[in-house]
Order: sequence, then structure tokens, then C-alpha cells
Amino acid sequence: MLGTILHGPYDVRCEEVPEPKIRQPTDAIIRLSASCICGSDLWPYRGLNDVTGPQAMGHEYCGIVVEVGPAVKTLKPGQFVVGSFCLSDNTCPHCRFGFQSSCEQREFMTAAQAPLARVALADGTLVATPEVPPDDLIPHLLAVSDVLGTGWYAADAARVQPGSTVAVVGDGAVGLMGVLAAKHMGADRIIAMSRHKTRQDLALEFGATDIVSERGDAGVARIKELTKSVGADAVLECVGTKESMMQALHCARPGAMIGYVGVPHGVQFDGQELFFLQRGLVGGPAPVRRFLPHLIDLVLTRKIEPGKVFDLNVPLKDVAEGYRAMDERRAIKTLLRL
Amino acid sequence: MLGTILHGPYDVRCEEVPEPKIRQPTDAIIRLSASCICGSDLWPYRGLNDVTGPQAMGHEYCGIVVEVGPAVKTLKPGQFVVGSFCLSDNTCPHCRFGFQSSCEQREFMTAAQAPLARVALADGTLVATPEVPPDDLIPHLLAVSDVLGTGWYAADAARVQPGSTVAVVGDGAVGLMGVLAAKHMGADRIIAMSRHKTRQDLALEFGATDIVSERGDAGVARIKELTKSVGADAVLECVGTKESMMQALHCARPGAMIGYVGVPHGVQFDGQELFFLQRGLVGGPAPVRRFLPHLIDLVLTRKIEPGKVFDLNVPLKDVAEGYRAMDERRAIKTLLRL
Repeated sequence: MLGTILHGPYDVRCEEVPEPKIRQPTDAIIRLSASCICGSDLWPYRGLNDVTGPQAMGHEYCGIVVEVGPAVKTLKPGQFVVGSFCLSDNTCPHCRFGFQSSCEQREFMTAAQAPLARVALADGTLVATPEVPPDDLIPHLLAVSDVLGTGWYAADAARVQPGSTVAVVGDGAVGLMGVLAAKHMGADRIIAMSRHKTRQDLALEFGATDIVSERGDAGVARIKELTKSVGADAVLECVGTKESMMQALHCARPGAMIGYVGVPHGVQFDGQELFFLQRGLVGGPAPVRRFLPHLIDLVLTRKIEPGKVFDLNVPLKDVAEGYRAMDERRAIKTLLRL
Repeated sequence: MLGTILHGPYDVRCEEVPEPKIRQPTDAIIRLSASCICGSDLWPYRGLNDVTGPQAMGHEYCGIVVEVGPAVKTLKPGQFVVGSFCLSDNTCPHCRFGFQSSCEQREFMTAAQAPLARVALADGTLVATPEVPPDDLIPHLLAVSDVLGTGWYAADAARVQPGSTVAVVGDGAVGLMGVLAAKHMGADRIIAMSRHKTRQDLALEFGATDIVSERGDAGVARIKELTKSVGADAVLECVGTKESMMQALHCARPGAMIGYVGVPHGVQFDGQELFFLQRGLVGGPAPVRRFLPHLIDLVLTRKIEPGKVFDLNVPLKDVAEGYRAMDERRAIKTLLRL
């Protein structure tokens, strides 16, 4: 079959790869209904993470079960499933506390920018829908797998409440999903920080009430102005750079929580500064599995349309163009047709 | 009158000082019923904070109002009051969110190791009791002012819940108060990390269920052993060193919150490490004012006895011995008789 392999910085190719096989009795093989490219795929693509050899890309997925290992109990071929980019047994103590992304058996999904993929820990990881959903819901269900689940976790970690004033740092796909999550959690005011017209428009469509295009000190000043010098009750940090984290810390009011979901690169916190700022931090890889049943239900009942975040749609053979478009910020998020 | 002045490292003296006077119309002057020495006083005493000149010490207090400024509306001479070490207006947005320690007008209390003290922002800061309490409750009410309020905040920030497994890092007075707070909040298991018999005994009296005397990696291993490899649901970091913070981070389970109340000295966090550990952090100077009414009530109704943390009781003239005893860890916390 065709699959997506990163060979080195800016060198991603669609090429022949072996079909995945059941390796563990707890595995499943699924035929993806669609796949996509994640903002986090750009770290290795840009050479900012070490790539030591050819690397099979992709960790967002939904589709039809085609085969299950002998130990899989809850799934059967033909079912439509959505899973998280973190594979988890959903039974260990961390999973039971809702932190499946720190599962004792955690693995990270790979090789999902391809028509078929192996999902380890299938019983714990995959959530089946009652029936195979209509095609028009596929992009929305695919978004649940990571980008929506991650934005949702940012809002959950930041403890967005009904009536909250929320600031979202980052207008990438995750930040936009954070806007959608904050809206759904009842935030009264959602300030999206974005300098790009198309992203601003989508943020407004997802529920943003204010757009701040300034960054750095000017961005913080603008948020303070919008909040009568108080700061935001909850901040979603959806980038992972030093600049974005400082922005998040200083946009928050004392006592506010910052949910940070951008993998930090070059970010250090000084303990004493953080202490006197009195901002709280909760981050990490999103425990999307915790949210899957609820988010799938919101999509199936057509209450949310997270798939609108896909503004480029290419066939798998053009995956390289999908990466380029995101790298150059011509696209927010690329859906791959299989 | 006599007061306590720090002249330089290890040079603290009880000497003649001017009596405090009303400076702002919102001030009150109180006659302290007792005073005490805080663990945080040891930072400048040991020369670890810069001391640029003679410094009037003391920030924990309760006592009788003797004079109020013309703008003070809610207090009158003769009332017994308890205040926080953070002076706050209790009306600004941060105060209304319960973060009075980040009040827009915040000041820090000073010069309270003396018989009389000036309290700024008196209406916002001071909470009066219905009547003048009996003498035997004075140490408990004095403890509310900072050490209990701070331990309470650590437990609140760490989101201790009924049934929680809690680890308390630090067996100083604040850590011991953290044990008391966790017990009162319904924690099922409270693991106190302490190597000192008298402190272990007091921790057990305040509600600790387990004592861990190991530190560093061995301490973490012991906590993991006690929690079936899971880690604690909530961790109270009550020291402020790099070692204690690392201990706290690694004793916590993924998703757990760490309430940190020891002022960090030499503590740095790596963003990516914190991200993948998936532990939450909330700290800062304790908003004791938020808790004052509740904690005063618990003392007045004799439900808690936080004053047991005072294991040395000296007259003000012997304040230097009080500092020495705490510095040498001969005393947990020194009460000063006035």
C-alpha cells in the first residue's frame, strides 16, 4: 500500500510501504476513512526534532475495523471507530483517573497517514460508534482523534467555566479547536490571538468574541485592556514556544490556570517568577480518550463541526504538498483522502 | 516600645523602636496578643535574601484594635482581629476571585514581632471575631494568620478531595499545617515526609497516616511503593528548594496537582519535562484572607488546634534565641510573648 515516510527535514514522501499486521493479541487493524497532518508533524518535518531514519508519519485516525487480535474483546470487524493519538489500556490507575495519555502501557500512534493502520491496545484505545456514520461526518470525527481532543483538553486543563473570560494563544488548528471547546463549555468571552484573516474568521465562527492581532507585550497590553486590567480567567496555550508561553502567563489573571498543549520547545520557567505570578499550569499530551465518547456524540448529533478546521484536502499521493502548505501557513490543517 | 530588627545575617535584635502610627486613613493599629517567627524569616536571617539595612521583622499577628484611621468603616477599637500577612483591599477583582495575595493594592505585613503594629488596608485585611477569645485560643488564632493559612492554601491548590492520597513535602510548620488541612479536607491517606521524630509525631497528631523518612530518589520510591506505583493524587510542596520541588513532582501521579507554597529558591522547570510528567502546578503567596473566616471559625469552635505547631515559647526580649532555635531546627516554630 501507499504510506507517508519522512526521510529528513522537508523530505516527506508518499511511497510503497508494507501493510500493517497484527503483532500483539491486543492489536486491531483499521481501514482509515481519512487521515490528516498534525501541527506537531511539522516539528520533525522542519528538522526541529531529531529524525534518525525514515519515519512513518501520522497519528490521527478514524475508520473501519478490518481485523482484531485474539485478545480483543470489545471490537469486531466492520465497526467504525475513533481512537486517540495516545494508545492506552484504559484500565490502569492513570487511565481511570482520566489521564490515559500517561497510561502505564502508553504508546504513541504512528504510521496513520496511510490507508491501513495498526492500533495497539485496541480495546482501551478505540471507541466504536453505534453505526457507520455518513461520509459528511468523517472530517469531524477525524478531528476528534487529536486536534479537537487536544484543544478540548487545553480548555479542560485551564478550567474554563460557564461565564469565563478565556484567552487562546495560538491560531493553529489546536488553538481554533480550543476556541470551539471554550465556547461549548460556556465561556462568556473568548479572545483569540491571531494575525491571519482566515484563522480569525474561523475563530469567530467557532465562537471567539474578540480577536487580538498584537503579540508580545503589545498583545498582553491588549488583553489587559479588554479585561479591565484583570487578565483572563483561563488561558489555552496552543503553540509551545517560549514567546507563546510568556504571552499565556502574562495574559492570565492571578489564580488563573493555563492549559498548555503545545509541546514546549525551549521553554523554561523560573520557579520564583511563577510563584509570584500566581498562575497555575497544567499541560501534557492530551488524554483524548477521556473525551472521546462525549466528543463523538457531539459530532454525531451535529452539535459541533470541528472538521471545518481542514481547509486543504488532498489525496494521499500529494501528502508532500499537504506538509508544505501547512509549513508555509497556507493551510491551517490538511486532510488526506485515502 | 520594643521591636525586632534584623541588622544582618544571624544578627537579629530586640530593641527600642518607635511606636507605629496611622499613616493612611485606611490603616489600623493593633495591640498584638502574641507574635511569632516564620520559616520565611529564616531566608533573610540566613543571608539568603539581600538585607540592605536594618529591617523590622514579623508578619503574623492577631490582637486588639487600638486605633483606626478615619476611612476604616468595619472595625473599631476593642475588637479582636486576625489578619493575613498579605494586606489586601478585598474588593478588587483579584480579591473577589479569592486571590487576595495578588490584590491590586497588595502590601506585605512587616514589623509585627512587636507589641503594636500598623495594618494597612484594615477593612479588607482584618477579620474580627464576635467577641474577644479566651487566652488559650490565642496561639491557634495566631497560626491562622499565616502558617495555617499557607498550609491550607497548599492543600486547596493541590485540590485535595475527600478520599485523596496526599503527600506533604516538608516537615516545617507549614508542611505540618498542610497535613492538618488535608485531614480536614477529607484526605484518606496523608503521607508526611519527615526525618525528625518530634515533627513526625506532630504530623501523626495532625492526621498523617504514613511517615516517609527517605528523601530524593529513595523518598520517591517509597511513595510509589505506598501508592502501588501510582503516586499521590495531590502533593503539597512546603519547602521551596530544587530538591523538594523535584521530590514533589515525582511523588505525584500524572494529572495530580502540586500546591507549592515554599518561596522557590533556585528552582527551574524545564517546560518539556513538565509537559510529559503531566503534573499541574499552582503556587504563590497564600491568599489567606480567603480562608480566614472559615479557619477562625474552626478554631473558635475548637475543631482544630493549629497552635500546637508552636513548640517554643519565649518572651519578645529573647527573640534572637527564637530565631536561633528555628535556624538550628531545635524548634519547629517560635511563639513570642509580648
